[in-house]
Amino acid sequence: MKLWGGRFSAPPADALDRLGKSVHFDRRLHAEEIRVNKAYARALAGAGVLDAGELERMLAGLDRVGALLGADPPPPLDDEDIHTAVERLLFDEIGELARKLPTGRSRNDLSQTEFRLYLTSATASLVEALDRLRTALLARADESADVLVPGYTHLQRAQPVVFGHLLLSHFWALTRDRERLEAAGRRASASPMGAGALAGNPYPVDREAIAGELGLAEVLDNSVDAVGTRDYAMEFLAAGAILGVHLSRLAEDLVLWSSAEFGFVRLGDAWSTGSSLMPQKRNPDGCELIRGKAGRLIGNLVALLTVGKGLASGYQRDLQEDKEPCFDTLDTLRLALPVAEGTIGTMEVSEERMRAALSWDLLATDLAEYLVAKGLPFRDAHRVAGEVFAYCERKSVEPPDLDPGTLRGFSPAFDEDVKAVWDYRASVARRSVRGGPGDIRSQLEAAKRTL
Amino acid sequence: MKLWGGRFSAPPADALDRLGKSVHFDRRLHAEEIRVNKAYARALAGAGVLDAGELERMLAGLDRVGALLGADPPPPLDDEDIHTAVERLLFDEIGELARKLPTGRSRNDLSQTEFRLYLTSATASLVEALDRLRTALLARADESADVLVPGYTHLQRAQPVVFGHLLLSHFWALTRDRERLEAAGRRASASPMGAGALAGNPYPVDREAIAGELGLAEVLDNSVDAVGTRDYAMEFLAAGAILGVHLSRLAEDLVLWSSAEFGFVRLGDAWSTGSSLMPQKRNPDGCELIRGKAGRLIGNLVALLTVGKGLASGYQRDLQEDKEPCFDTLDTLRLALPVAEGTIGTMEVSEERMRAALSWDLLATDLAEYLVAKGLPFRDAHRVAGEVFAYCERKSVEPPDLDPGTLRGFSPAFDEDVKAVWDYRASVARRSVRGGPGDIRSQLEAAKRTL
Amino acid sequence: MKLWGGRFSAPPADALDRLGKSVHFDRRLHAEEIRVNKAYARALAGAGVLDAGELERMLAGLDRVGALLGADPPPPLDDEDIHTAVERLLFDEIGELARKLPTGRSRNDLSQTEFRLYLTSATASLVEALDRLRTALLARADESADVLVPGYTHLQRAQPVVFGHLLLSHFWALTRDRERLEAAGRRASASPMGAGALAGNPYPVDREAIAGELGLAEVLDNSVDAVGTRDYAMEFLAAGAILGVHLSRLAEDLVLWSSAEFGFVRLGDAWSTGSSLMPQKRNPDGCELIRGKAGRLIGNLVALLTVGKGLASGYQRDLQEDKEPCFDTLDTLRLALPVAEGTIGTMEVSEERMRAALSWDLLATDLAEYLVAKGLPFRDAHRVAGEVFAYCERKSVEPPDLDPGTLRGFSPAFDEDVKAVWDYRASVARRSVRGGPGDIRSQLEAAKRTL
Amino acid sequence: MKLWGGRFSAPPADALDRLGKSVHFDRRLHAEEIRVNKAYARALAGAGVLDAGELERMLAGLDRVGALLGADPPPPLDDEDIHTAVERLLFDEIGELARKLPTGRSRNDLSQTEFRLYLTSATASLVEALDRLRTALLARADESADVLVPGYTHLQRAQPVVFGHLLLSHFWALTRDRERLEAAGRRASASPMGAGALAGNPYPVDREAIAGELGLAEVLDNSVDAVGTRDYAMEFLAAGAILGVHLSRLAEDLVLWSSAEFGFVRLGDAWSTGSSLMPQKRNPDGCELIRGKAGRLIGNLVALLTVGKGLASGYQRDLQEDKEPCFDTLDTLRLALPVAEGTIGTMEVSEERMRAALSWDLLATDLAEYLVAKGLPFRDAHRVAGEVFAYCERKSVEPPDLDPGTLRGFSPAFDEDVKAVWDYRASVARRSVRGGPGDIRSQLEAAKRTL
Repeated sequence: MKLWGGRFSAPPADALDRLGKSVHFDRRLHAEEIRVNKAYARALAGAGVLDAGELERMLAGLDRVGALLGADPPPPLDDEDIHTAVERLLFDEIGELARKLPTGRSRNDLSQTEFRLYLTSATASLVEALDRLRTALLARADESADVLVPGYTHLQRAQPVVFGHLLLSHFWALTRDRERLEAAGRRASASPMGAGALAGNPYPVDREAIAGELGLAEVLDNSVDAVGTRDYAMEFLAAGAILGVHLSRLAEDLVLWSSAEFGFVRLGDAWSTGSSLMPQKRNPDGCELIRGKAGRLIGNLVALLTVGKGLASGYQRDLQEDKEPCFDTLDTLRLALPVAEGTIGTMEVSEERMRAALSWDLLATDLAEYLVAKGLPFRDAHRVAGEVFAYCERKSVEPPDLDPGTLRGFSPAFDEDVKAVWDYRASVARRSVRGGPGDIRSQLEAAKRTL
Repeated sequence: MKLWGGRFSAPPADALDRLGKSVHFDRRLHAEEIRVNKAYARALAGAGVLDAGELERMLAGLDRVGALLGADPPPPLDDEDIHTAVERLLFDEIGELARKLPTGRSRNDLSQTEFRLYLTSATASLVEALDRLRTALLARADESADVLVPGYTHLQRAQPVVFGHLLLSHFWALTRDRERLEAAGRRASASPMGAGALAGNPYPVDREAIAGELGLAEVLDNSVDAVGTRDYAMEFLAAGAILGVHLSRLAEDLVLWSSAEFGFVRLGDAWSTGSSLMPQKRNPDGCELIRGKAGRLIGNLVALLTVGKGLASGYQRDLQEDKEPCFDTLDTLRLALPVAEGTIGTMEVSEERMRAALSWDLLATDLAEYLVAKGLPFRDAHRVAGEVFAYCERKSVEPPDLDPGTLRGFSPAFDEDVKAVWDYRASVARRSVRGGPGDIRSQLEAAKRTL
Repeated sequence: MKLWGGRFSAPPADALDRLGKSVHFDRRLHAEEIRVNKAYARALAGAGVLDAGELERMLAGLDRVGALLGADPPPPLDDEDIHTAVERLLFDEIGELARKLPTGRSRNDLSQTEFRLYLTSATASLVEALDRLRTALLARADESADVLVPGYTHLQRAQPVVFGHLLLSHFWALTRDRERLEAAGRRASASPMGAGALAGNPYPVDREAIAGELGLAEVLDNSVDAVGTRDYAMEFLAAGAILGVHLSRLAEDLVLWSSAEFGFVRLGDAWSTGSSLMPQKRNPDGCELIRGKAGRLIGNLVALLTVGKGLASGYQRDLQEDKEPCFDTLDTLRLALPVAEGTIGTMEVSEERMRAALSWDLLATDLAEYLVAKGLPFRDAHRVAGEVFAYCERKSVEPPDLDPGTLRGFSPAFDEDVKAVWDYRASVARRSVRGGPGDIRSQLEAAKRTL
Repeated sequence: MKLWGGRFSAPPADALDRLGKSVHFDRRLHAEEIRVNKAYARALAGAGVLDAGELERMLAGLDRVGALLGADPPPPLDDEDIHTAVERLLFDEIGELARKLPTGRSRNDLSQTEFRLYLTSATASLVEALDRLRTALLARADESADVLVPGYTHLQRAQPVVFGHLLLSHFWALTRDRERLEAAGRRASASPMGAGALAGNPYPVDREAIAGELGLAEVLDNSVDAVGTRDYAMEFLAAGAILGVHLSRLAEDLVLWSSAEFGFVRLGDAWSTGSSLMPQKRNPDGCELIRGKAGRLIGNLVALLTVGKGLASGYQRDLQEDKEPCFDTLDTLRLALPVAEGTIGTMEVSEERMRAALSWDLLATDLAEYLVAKGLPFRDAHRVAGEVFAYCERKSVEPPDLDPGTLRGFSPAFDEDVKAVWDYRASVARRSVRGGPGDIRSQLEAAKRTL
């Protein structure tokens, strides 16, 4: 069954059918297809195209088709797309009356409405999965709010912080991802239904009522735009790609932290994997997979942006390429988020290894600040502290072991009280301005308020 | 002058200097650098690091450096980056006192604050340029609200619409771009200042006051996140890329419409170019360039997303790659938007050529709808109409010339009143549901309300 | 069944299993898996790890597993990956002996060898499909070697050419794609087998013999590189993306040419589709889909490049992301190429519509060249010709109707013989330098030699 | 000065001029522009368009223009593009005769010929820079051919290898990049000159002679393809992007190895940088920048692929976007390669830290292989070895300290000679099959043969 063909002398070539077929992926929208069709049937009744009895039969028929498509296992479908399948199955259920359903409607507005509907709830489900990961991060941050650890820049030890502070840095990035996903969901929540193929609908269907029944927040104001734009899907893919980048950074941290060299965390057995060759291995495969998935999330975004580039306005068949990247981004994130959550939630934190990684050079900035307190301009204090550390490295001396006399060789500002500098916890405590590791308790409170 | 080096025995190799140098592009931020430095100097005074006199001298010095950097022509700079340049120039102005400015501050929080500040106003300026284009589109749509033209799908004539409706389809897409740009601007509007290199600030600087003075809406809550995230820039680039796709679609329409074959519009001489070989040519180069620019806008987005992928948390030098793609996206859009605006605003619309392009097949759907009104289910009406048109094509007959008898051979539902179908304007008028071409007056009103 | 686990106290979490599972896509490599395993079993026998009887049983067992996996319908598999599945099934067939097969081998070298093997033959099959398209283009070019048509730049009519010349322009682009695909196939044709997980193989397996048996051209020289690189797959994806861009340009030409406005070709009914709403439509859906598929081809390339970015050397689990983009690129091209071939091979070429599109301005360059022959420098001749055409447009005169006196008002160089300029075919014939439309016969010969 | 305008009533708008101007980047091609123009002038003389004296004057004039453009500092240029600039300057030099140069030529074939010429030599220069890096890698690999180090997969210690083996893994990847760059250079080496704007050249210019004079290997066979394709540039960008990925992986290794936690190498002072805040820092900024540059290299590729997508055949102005990404990729690689070379060439290798990182679990596979030698199937041996290591971890025992009795509790196959397993160097030596770390001497020889 084709939904067209009156003017054609030959059916589509097999190769064309194969290229154009979408039912293997758009059947995922079957529940939305039924919902939109039911809303549209009600609108047709409102417009006088269907009478009350017809409407009732059509709704019942659609429900039966919906049940059929939602069965487990799902029925095989060999139609061109889900719309054709539903029209065929509805005909099986209610006969000729089925042929009234497409009145004033096109696959263009139908497919866009159901895809938007799908994305609206899909983003909501991603937000939930993301919130579970954020909750896990926050809980672990809370536990480790006092656990000293080197902070790194350039993967070089930089200044002491607390482990909870590092975990929270990911929390906030994911909080912004949540906002972007929600914005993408709101953008999707607009109804094309009633736009027809491009030129609107000649029957007095109530577009607001259709949108309202479907829970879509808006009605799109231009029929050509309604069927031709895919910016909402691009926006969703962009939010997904940025989230993917953030997850890849969290994953990289976990890979580093769980290496033998860092040893800051030990991933749970259930969140590690072994090797088919090397019996001793405990690999952070989950983290690596999450890190790698950023590639496909970015690829999906590029795919759809490229499809849109240079396309004449209105509907072109190229736009059928909108769904697969979105489904893949959705599925990828649905797989990755729980693994991130589980890994974070169950990892063992090794306070001992973190403590062992604290080295005096982490306090070089504190040494400079000590000199600032003694009256040196910061830039000079920075130079002096650098020279002190270079000296210690050359002489293999621990900086706290330098006697005041040697230090005064670098700057007369050094005094006995320099000893107080060599205290990691005090260094963290001094950084108590908002957003600093010394202010982590307020930060935890602020984080909790976003959940 | 380097801002570090106390512990180094050799200066950086030339090759490394060349690779790392950023002053040729980050000098663009010089005004923001001065603003942020002034706000920070005030915060240092508030924290007791500078006294009132020092603050006054520092602010004055910074103003002089700002004037110097803002001179026309701008001074040559051979420093590593704009921060080093400013610190050097400030020293020239106020001597040793300059060396107190970096107290508690890092290039990490400084550069991020000024870049966010820059993006905040840059997005605002893009929104203005975009609004001028939207205004032009709306004005031309208003003028051509009654101009009949074929609507196309698949680049095949589909149904009659009015030209203003096609122009408005672009208007709404750009309206959503405006919202995305504004959201990106709001996201950028948050202050990292006070985050230091990663571990916050040990002096009691008032981060809210700094943000307030700079007009940034928020203070970032985590110092590691504050210097390490670039998601706001990615979000800006994503908004720019989607806008670029929309502009490329508008450009493609203009290229098509101004071709000899369509002839729907004639671009103004000032918005066309000629050929160095072919004397007759009037080329829509502006539109083609706009269309092509989508490539770099997408490329810029990919570049930064890829930079971020798999990076350990906190600051890594890779992140220096954030600015060039944003600057390029900004410059590209600033060049492209006025050309789109000028082209739209001055093109001649050929009502005559549009009218000539109306062909009876555009009314095939109306013919089917006629049959629906006579009681046929739509799917059957669709098949009959298709057969009628195939017959006309085979026989080289104009559909309105078919006598009722012939038509009744296709379906007994045809009657004398079928004549009324062959009216393009009536077809448009019937599509008066919200969003349809027959409802363009309300759509124009709705569009005006968004400006 | 897991291939590891001796040291683990808990099995992988379901979420991790789901994220890491690859059998649903890597089962596509089952035939290659069997081939590589058989070659490896022979190498183990050569190394003395298996005796002759064991080898025989193992080969027979692998053949039976191969038959099982190749059955139609294929058996359901719920293993982690195809390697685990084969090891399990082999155990079912030959018992304990199966547990000797992995000796010295890792999934890392195994999976890479079979993937390379697969890509080697996959590129060969793409080259064949591409050659069928090239053959179709060449045949149609030959038929239309004398069919005049406007050549376009900027989608504006530029100079007369012949239609075969336009078709051949695509032929040559695709010829270079063929070379790139073949180069990618050669790159893939190298054997990692014997590299183990990263550190090589402690048994004296003959790596050259394995490669030879598999038909792989080379043996990779470094075990870490052998299991860690994916550049060959990136190269394949890049060749696929560039081919995709070329196909999208061909598709765009076909979409334009088959529009009502151009009307240069009419696509066969079997290569067109209709509309579910508009009964008259004949849409070039196949061409649009081909055009849109460039998006995913580029997306696939980006996905894998991004996965590779910043990864530490050697094997990381991220690299499991190599297969899906390659499979998708392969499948996409296998679907798209026959549609391009069928569309080209069956389209009707309308000599009449092409002829009707020839307009005098296509000869403006010839007019300038006429003046060059009369002694004007080209740049002056260009200006004069431009003025003549502007005059004709203003006065609505056909250029051939201008009398010599009027022409001499533009330049005294004009003479009676200017009449000869107004001949489209002569214009083409004059462009007989190699590569010009007037030299199409030699070009056709050159093209044939590449097939 | 514009090279067109005869038929225009108004000059281009400023905004259009700004958008379309390319002289700020295409002036980089000035030397190639002169070379191509000279070759073309000779061809015009050969075709009888210029006489001997004219040719001589024109060549001399072009040389003077070339000198002018090549001056240091370069002259300011405010023309539309380099072609317009040269035509203007040539007119200044030789007057009216200059106006004959464009005879039969277009900016389309001119600009493409010079860009291809430029890319041909640019790729050659990249190959040289790449070879210097490969030479450095090989030299350091040779020095460290016996330095034991853990090999990693999943960033987990896996099996012992030698450091030279790890360095060589990068060598081979870069060797393939060299081949790809050379292939891209060969692809670029083809001459469009004589293709005109699209329709070839009506004068009998000798295209082979032009190509020969320029050192381009081929003449393109189709004038529309010659001016419209950009696949050679895409191929160059793809080769650059894959090289960028490889460099980013090398850089990641260096960042890891030079961290405090690994400590395998210490980067030279000249190849490290400090921090403006933290006096002690020695950061691997060069490596991080190299790693980050992969982003723009991939972005550049995406940009041009996207530009090409869906473009009608022949020249469209969008294609002007070809040069900037190629220039940027070229510049980026020219900056990055010497930094990689310098960093590799000067780093200190800490044999001691590498040795300290060897831990017994690296020999777990060897333990399994020991059991295989005792007759266990590998899969069983793997399980037993895994259990032994889990036991040791639980009991905090070093595996070599386990007495044979305990071991026999895991498998009766254990014997006294198991002691011999605990030898890292022996483990490496056993992996002497081609490509293994134990065969590094032959590998070094093979590597040398490629230089």
